[in-house]
Amino acid sequence: MDHTCGGYFTCLDRDGTVFDTDKFVWLQARQVWMFSMLYNELEKRKSWLKMARHGAQFLRGHGMDEDGNWYFALARDGRPLVQPYNIFSDCFAAMAFGQVALATGDADSYEIAERTYRNILRRKDNPKGKYNKAVPGTRPMISLALPMILANVSLELEWMLDADTLDRTVSASLDEIFSLLLDPERKLFYEQVAPDGTPLDCFDSRLILPGHGIEAMWFFMDIAERRKDPATVAKAVDAVLHTLDFGWDRKYGGIFYYLDAHGHPPQKLEWDQKLWWVHIETLVALIMGYRLTGREDCWAWYEKVHDYTWQRFPDPETGEWFGYLNRRG
Amino acid sequence: MDHTCGGYFTCLDRDGTVFDTDKFVWLQARQVWMFSMLYNELEKRKSWLKMARHGAQFLRGHGMDEDGNWYFALARDGRPLVQPYNIFSDCFAAMAFGQVALATGDADSYEIAERTYRNILRRKDNPKGKYNKAVPGTRPMISLALPMILANVSLELEWMLDADTLDRTVSASLDEIFSLLLDPERKLFYEQVAPDGTPLDCFDSRLILPGHGIEAMWFFMDIAERRKDPATVAKAVDAVLHTLDFGWDRKYGGIFYYLDAHGHPPQKLEWDQKLWWVHIETLVALIMGYRLTGREDCWAWYEKVHDYTWQRFPDPETGEWFGYLNRRG
Repeated sequence: MDHTCGGYFTCLDRDGTVFDTDKFVWLQARQVWMFSMLYNELEKRKSWLKMARHGAQFLRGHGMDEDGNWYFALARDGRPLVQPYNIFSDCFAAMAFGQVALATGDADSYEIAERTYRNILRRKDNPKGKYNKAVPGTRPMISLALPMILANVSLELEWMLDADTLDRTVSASLDEIFSLLLDPERKLFYEQVAPDGTPLDCFDSRLILPGHGIEAMWFFMDIAERRKDPATVAKAVDAVLHTLDFGWDRKYGGIFYYLDAHGHPPQKLEWDQKLWWVHIETLVALIMGYRLTGREDCWAWYEKVHDYTWQRFPDPETGEWFGYLNRRG
Repeated sequence: MDHTCGGYFTCLDRDGTVFDTDKFVWLQARQVWMFSMLYNELEKRKSWLKMARHGAQFLRGHGMDEDGNWYFALARDGRPLVQPYNIFSDCFAAMAFGQVALATGDADSYEIAERTYRNILRRKDNPKGKYNKAVPGTRPMISLALPMILANVSLELEWMLDADTLDRTVSASLDEIFSLLLDPERKLFYEQVAPDGTPLDCFDSRLILPGHGIEAMWFFMDIAERRKDPATVAKAVDAVLHTLDFGWDRKYGGIFYYLDAHGHPPQKLEWDQKLWWVHIETLVALIMGYRLTGREDCWAWYEKVHDYTWQRFPDPETGEWFGYLNRRG
């Protein structure tokens, strides 16, 4: 908590010392969301609400440009550093202010969440706006990230949206994910494909992030459960297991960060690292899959990923977690 | 060589099979430069000139937008894929067409090189143009990359520039590098500092790329040698040795890719990898430093880096080199 300028510090050393004071809107908003969600769903602790309000106040005062787009990063004192080129900042802000509105009944927070949500829907077909470096028309592609987060934000804000908007957005996302971005034979998710669902033979379209596809699947298991749609649950669980089979490092254990669908070298140098979030999302997906379907292979994979994760990521000295490991863990 | 569409293929598998056909302007232009430079400086081999012309023809036909800015990437058939957001594409293109003009006497190549060079000078204060995501004014910074490449391009095109433009550009670069970007006490180069040379306490300004600073130093040793300026040579050699001392991995050998000037965690996950180009640039700088100053510590470091490089990077199966190694080599 930054008591001088507002907001939170998010770059701490191993011993807890702040080493960088820049304020990334993703992280500020996720923290506001976390504390207000805990207050809303777990226990009405005053300290949690206070923590959430503290960050919300900072974001409300400094986070947006004139058109209500959320900056990517702010200086410690709130001056904008990085332009609003990234729609995830807006998504995380909408979720944060939705939870704050729920916790406090505050009309202003409600309005920010609602306005940001409308702005996301408006920007969704070209989320990077003028910062988009792809030449229009040469190789149009749709991405996994967008329908994923749209479905997620929409469910988060369910209580403030009309049923029709919600249903339309979630159904469109579900459709895009399962009929366009999922490879029907290999049951893997591409990060990007042509607008008609064809995977293209280029770096961006061959790219597979196992952790990302698996994360998408638990979002949609959750949705399918609410919609009482066991067929979608079954498809999602199936995709999780196929993705794990593809993304698991058979030599050293753990799940790769980036892979190429055809086995070529990925562009990113960090492709073989083992990241904390990939493993956490996978554990969530597996336990949810097991709960919803009772499939034994979900449980077997859960145990395997659980063991790897708890053996490797916790830092025995501080009780915190390492963010990323090299290939050998 | 792509005999169907022109240009070259640059993404080959370990056995030489083409696995991706996108054409990155950096790589196309570097290859044109390489073959025409070999023709100009080593031996008048017809096959080299033919190879260079082949790529130049493709680039001339497809590489630029209407204003003469060079795209970042093209599809196999030359349609533009990625907008001209990166001024290094222009720098490499100017150098390529300069060498082609020298090899062939072709007026069109001369004109492309000259026009591109003028365009680079015009764009140099905001090289990313509208794709720049930094909010203007909040935290202005200057970068090491720009004066480095400007000096490099200017020397390459020396024969076609008037002496005054050349001298002014090279002197300005030299001044910016040594009086603003070099830490006078630690003798390390920052990638970015405030316009008055102050290093800032933020991720971008704490970032140190040992290979990049060392590369800059051999560019400037070369310049200082031509200018008969032994004081600058001495400063450059000193900076190389201090940077190596800072960037060398004392545990596993090799030079780190990214480091934080204060020892904090860098933002990039691949910071501890060992990259081929870092080691090659270092060998060039050390041998040049030894030739110009006779300093024994240049030679000792040369042997150490040479041994590491030749033990680790060559692929015994194919005779090619690995592009990057993990921390342990």
